[in-house]
Amino acid sequence: MKKIKIEKKILSENEKFSIENSFCLSQKNLLCLNMISSPGSGKTTILTKTINALKDKIRIGVIEGDIQTDIDAQRISQTGAPVIQINTEGACHLSAEQVGRGLKYLPVDNLDLIIIENVGNLVCPSAFELGESGKVVVLSVAEGDDKPAKYPAIFAKSKAMLINKIDLLGNVDFDIERAKKDAGTLNKNLKIFPVSAKTGEGMDAWNNWIIEQIYNCQKQQ
Amino acid sequence: MKKIKIEKKILSENEKFSIENSFCLSQKNLLCLNMISSPGSGKTTILTKTINALKDKIRIGVIEGDIQTDIDAQRISQTGAPVIQINTEGACHLSAEQVGRGLKYLPVDNLDLIIIENVGNLVCPSAFELGESGKVVVLSVAEGDDKPAKYPAIFAKSKAMLINKIDLLGNVDFDIERAKKDAGTLNKNLKIFPVSAKTGEGMDAWNNWIIEQIYNCQKQQ
Repeated sequence: MKKIKIEKKILSENEKFSIENSFCLSQKNLLCLNMISSPGSGKTTILTKTINALKDKIRIGVIEGDIQTDIDAQRISQTGAPVIQINTEGACHLSAEQVGRGLKYLPVDNLDLIIIENVGNLVCPSAFELGESGKVVVLSVAEGDDKPAKYPAIFAKSKAMLINKIDLLGNVDFDIERAKKDAGTLNKNLKIFPVSAKTGEGMDAWNNWIIEQIYNCQKQQ
Repeated sequence: MKKIKIEKKILSENEKFSIENSFCLSQKNLLCLNMISSPGSGKTTILTKTINALKDKIRIGVIEGDIQTDIDAQRISQTGAPVIQINTEGACHLSAEQVGRGLKYLPVDNLDLIIIENVGNLVCPSAFELGESGKVVVLSVAEGDDKPAKYPAIFAKSKAMLINKIDLLGNVDFDIERAKKDAGTLNKNLKIFPVSAKTGEGMDAWNNWIIEQIYNCQKQQ
């Protein structure tokens, strides 16, 4: 019982900062996507490809969450996009307070979209709202088609799902229809994009969805 | 500061059960390995192949940790090994108290080894001792060679590391020497086994290491 009380307290503190972030982002008319996946599903590669594909159309800023190192932020900065690295030093997810501090270092008045790349973890980040407009879950085909059934929370809460590394489909046992069906059962509004960030296959549909989301966000103003 | 105090309290409660488990296992002369990885690195496939390869030599029992479903326990039970499924219902790691309950349902007097397959998560399970003899971390080559640098805790704490899915090495960007070097820098005693649970490559060395660990454990009695 004690454990449950403690968890509520942490979430409430996080919730306060999450509401602040959400207010700040809506004031600036800024779409913000919180990208969540297991380690190594390809989030950073997807991001670099998307930034490069859309750099003449929209302005993207990135908040990189990692336990340690700035390997991912370095990769993002090579695209020219503004990026902030947050090291959680052991914590298994980004907190809204950390994201709030990150937002202060980004040129928010000159951006259309902020993408938060959360710590690689399919479980914990789904429980911590960061003030984002929506969550995007990435599942690599190398991880197996049973992941929506086994880790349902993040699939139930996301706006979009990228099934990445489809270039490996011939080399791994992954039934794409099973993954789609299980994720769709958890979340009937989930937009699903099978992609290969490596080869570029399917990336246009995902990039167009982002443009559409930004358009809808800015229209609301 | 409050958050740090809370974490200590939870860990202490866990520690108490961990010591109980450790005492119970050592009384029975039982080796216990706690297997940790990201979702989809291939823990269950490794386990089924190892159980089948060693079933005439040693008796293995399994504790399966998953957030939801008994998919993995069903796969293990097809080998004939005794298995207990623990569903954490959202929690991101197994606790020592859950493992202690699991041990009560396994025929511990007739086993040489218990393998705990933890919840798929490269971060949180490394912070919770379960009373095990040692941790084994699994990294799939599809996850990328930067994972030891980015998620150092589990690599620093493990006795052995399996680099799985080496059959995919020609299809993914993974520098096996970099992964070995980074993990070895964190932990100079780490035993590293490149394997493909799918094709069987490298599995003999891993299986022989298990036999050796059991021998050392039983010799201590």
